[in-house]
Amino acid sequence: MATEHKEEEVRVLGKWASPFSNRINLALKLKGIPYQYSEEDLANKSADLLKYNPVHKKVPVLVHNGKPIAESLVILEYIEDVWNNNPFLPQDPYERALARFWSKTLDDKILPAIWNACWSNEKGREKAVEEALAALKILQDELKDKKFFGGENIGLVDIAANFVGYWVGILQEIAGLELLTVEKFPKLYKWSQEFVNHSVIKEGLPPRDELYVFFKASASK
Amino acid sequence: MATEHKEEEVRVLGKWASPFSNRINLALKLKGIPYQYSEEDLANKSADLLKYNPVHKKVPVLVHNGKPIAESLVILEYIEDVWNNNPFLPQDPYERALARFWSKTLDDKILPAIWNACWSNEKGREKAVEEALAALKILQDELKDKKFFGGENIGLVDIAANFVGYWVGILQEIAGLELLTVEKFPKLYKWSQEFVNHSVIKEGLPPRDELYVFFKASASK
Repeated sequence: MATEHKEEEVRVLGKWASPFSNRINLALKLKGIPYQYSEEDLANKSADLLKYNPVHKKVPVLVHNGKPIAESLVILEYIEDVWNNNPFLPQDPYERALARFWSKTLDDKILPAIWNACWSNEKGREKAVEEALAALKILQDELKDKKFFGGENIGLVDIAANFVGYWVGILQEIAGLELLTVEKFPKLYKWSQEFVNHSVIKEGLPPRDELYVFFKASASK
Repeated sequence: MATEHKEEEVRVLGKWASPFSNRINLALKLKGIPYQYSEEDLANKSADLLKYNPVHKKVPVLVHNGKPIAESLVILEYIEDVWNNNPFLPQDPYERALARFWSKTLDDKILPAIWNACWSNEKGREKAVEEALAALKILQDELKDKKFFGGENIGLVDIAANFVGYWVGILQEIAGLELLTVEKFPKLYKWSQEFVNHSVIKEGLPPRDELYVFFKASASK
């Protein structure tokens, strides 16, 4: 007898070195959702990427049963709406709003500040580093004494902060900067260690040595 | 007998001419929620604004029973989470994701393109106008033949598009540009008319003549 139950089709169009793409991998792994991953060549974007995200033409895109969704924070909310096991958003509306505020603030303010510092030239470096340190301080102040931004468990803000938890350590080494260090930001540094050592997160992050080579090559261009 | 029911305290810190502030007024009016409005002088920010939104120091801020929330799209989600009458987000997760995608795309891409065109100098004008028209086309394509982006009723995207529905007509007149016109974008123009004539929206928008004077003065600086 043919089954009437249609298998879920979950596909991610991503770029392995992108923290924005990686957020989706992490979220799906935290929920335990199997998915098919398609690596994009951003210098030669696939017909699917252009079809599924014609407005921004960017990764990541989640395609669920043929329906595409773009923009990583929008995708994370969708994953949380569809699969309600292992929730990464709190139930309380105010706590949800804070998680959304911090995720958005990571994208609008904190990540750009750190990114700019890591790629700044000598002339702009001092100011850029100052702004990156100010951004990291804001984030550490929000963490307070919690294990994760989500409390005892990984939450939306932890996923959205994957760049801070993992990428920054690599980029600052390549740039020869000290941004997120145990001396400067002991609590945030401790969080980054908890984050990368979390059993599911650890399996979902790209290999450090490959990221190092990838960004080192970009820095030399 | 003293009542144990504590009155809801809803306060908005805003700027009357800001479309981002105005979104919050519109959402609260659509839900029928009474609120106290505090006009901010952005050249001399209030102690409350600095206390409630220390990260961005921007309007709007919603303060609900003493708890502050910043960033207009985050506030709109909060309002929807707390007061579930007259919903402006659909129930279906995919439809919700699309509403979030378009609201975010308005802020990240469409509004900046239009804003830049309206304030561009002669040198950059042609390219800026081209980008603004491309952005408006993207938005009109999303509207399709619907009355509102939300369908028959005002939804999140309609609220987030208040700048397009109302402000653009004023700014393009000041700048001497033709961006959103009935000839260029018949469906989007028709939507803008439906939007500004909606009984609740109409009451919630700042007076056109005052906005004109305000932005005209800014343009002359």
